[in-house]
Amino acid sequence: MAKKRSKKAEKEPGLSELLRVPDGGERVDLGSYDARATPGGPEDKKAALAEIEQMGERLAGLQERLWAASTAGDRRRVLLILQGMDTSGKGGTVKHVIGLLNPSGCRIKAFKTPTPEELKHPFLWRIRKALPAPGEIGIFDRSHYEDVLIARVRGLAPRSELTRRYARINRFEQSLTGNDVTVVKCFLHLSYDEQRARLLERLDRPDKHWKFSPGDIDERALWPAYQEAYELALRRCATPRAPWYLIPADRKWYRNWAVSRLLLEHLEALDPQYPKADFDVEECRKRLLKGA
Amino acid sequence: MAKKRSKKAEKEPGLSELLRVPDGGERVDLGSYDARATPGGPEDKKAALAEIEQMGERLAGLQERLWAASTAGDRRRVLLILQGMDTSGKGGTVKHVIGLLNPSGCRIKAFKTPTPEELKHPFLWRIRKALPAPGEIGIFDRSHYEDVLIARVRGLAPRSELTRRYARINRFEQSLTGNDVTVVKCFLHLSYDEQRARLLERLDRPDKHWKFSPGDIDERALWPAYQEAYELALRRCATPRAPWYLIPADRKWYRNWAVSRLLLEHLEALDPQYPKADFDVEECRKRLLKGA
Repeated sequence: MAKKRSKKAEKEPGLSELLRVPDGGERVDLGSYDARATPGGPEDKKAALAEIEQMGERLAGLQERLWAASTAGDRRRVLLILQGMDTSGKGGTVKHVIGLLNPSGCRIKAFKTPTPEELKHPFLWRIRKALPAPGEIGIFDRSHYEDVLIARVRGLAPRSELTRRYARINRFEQSLTGNDVTVVKCFLHLSYDEQRARLLERLDRPDKHWKFSPGDIDERALWPAYQEAYELALRRCATPRAPWYLIPADRKWYRNWAVSRLLLEHLEALDPQYPKADFDVEECRKRLLKGA
Repeated sequence: MAKKRSKKAEKEPGLSELLRVPDGGERVDLGSYDARATPGGPEDKKAALAEIEQMGERLAGLQERLWAASTAGDRRRVLLILQGMDTSGKGGTVKHVIGLLNPSGCRIKAFKTPTPEELKHPFLWRIRKALPAPGEIGIFDRSHYEDVLIARVRGLAPRSELTRRYARINRFEQSLTGNDVTVVKCFLHLSYDEQRARLLERLDRPDKHWKFSPGDIDERALWPAYQEAYELALRRCATPRAPWYLIPADRKWYRNWAVSRLLLEHLEALDPQYPKADFDVEECRKRLLKGA
């Protein structure tokens, strides 16, 4: 027993463990999570930016290995799902975290209001079309979770259908993880007050007006319903193989640090390797040096 | 006359002018262009890297404006086409130049050997599907030009068909520029010797073996035929509205600097603007402050 403990203590506890939402089906109470907290994080913004820069190099290196491995048949890939209220920083995370990577290997998809064609199909149809290929890092800015979030809050589907959707989502994500997709689901947890501050900033700056719509204030009026819908989605769809991570998002530097760190931990766990040459290196070198 | 000249002298001559392939239908002789040259460029690698970093901020700012403008109906977008021999640095350009941008607004497509489905369609079919949407910056790593390059060298299509393709490509690109797409075609001009050095480096480094295939040496044997095919493509398809830029690519720092600079000049010429608010800013601020 003592031995086991000391072994565990040796291993640095990962951020993944710290931020992971329990998957036992317990009720999730978002009110009990402080959106300004910085669990496991650096002490301030300056330190965070320095660590993010360092992680950037490691992330890009691991991304290259993941891609290289795929050229030799390794089918593994990563899917990062970003969810959160308006202004919680989904777009900012893509810019600052995914911006650390080689854009060639990233498949980014921002899901908007479904088009008439998308509405003709089951809700996972457009999701499947946007999945990353082997070796890629896929990024979803919003996702199939909108179909149990806004769909619930706005009553876009009957309750019975919503209930079925949680199960469908879980089966879908299980099939992904069974097909070499590492699923990293991040809920960017923003406070009501911070959302007001961010919306006001968008109003104060003419170069941010384009990001604002009066409809954002109407959505804000539905805050409690959204929080409840998120609590349910986190509770029903936090599974051992496709866990949810709850990321306090009131501080942008912590949010970027935490998502970078989560991505890093998952890529390090995959530990992709450069493939070995399947050709005669020495012979090729000779051919090239002989004048070819 | 003197006045005109002095006006021209006032304007800093852009890199676009310097690298633009003449569009009068004259024969292009690639042998007369030094692939190690650095026309208009900084004096050394160190200076280039510093300038690239500075340009990165301006590029990202212009990209945001382009995107913001598209949310208010501006349909303009940019398409950067990268062509060049193996190891000329198409992938490296995406990593280092496009890596300066917000990945959300980039639509990157690497064209490989056509799939059986793609082969069933006209050669521009797969190209049209990968075009950037309004506000986006599209990047093609290889393109429809492969259909007059490898297709010519490997005899994948009859000569009469190849001849028709130049005209089709020109019509296609005219239709793009007529539809608010700024087309920036970059030929990364590499020397035969530098290609050998880069292939040898891939052999020397086990972490680069995955980028190498013995077939690369066979393709290299066709170097003169490829150069001729490029000369023809540059000659036939350099048009006033969709010009070709010839970028000496033996020095990676110059290549990255030059493509960054070309992109910057084109975005600055577009001069996209943040859209004005189409809502009552003051009223929204009041609603938010009143407790919403």
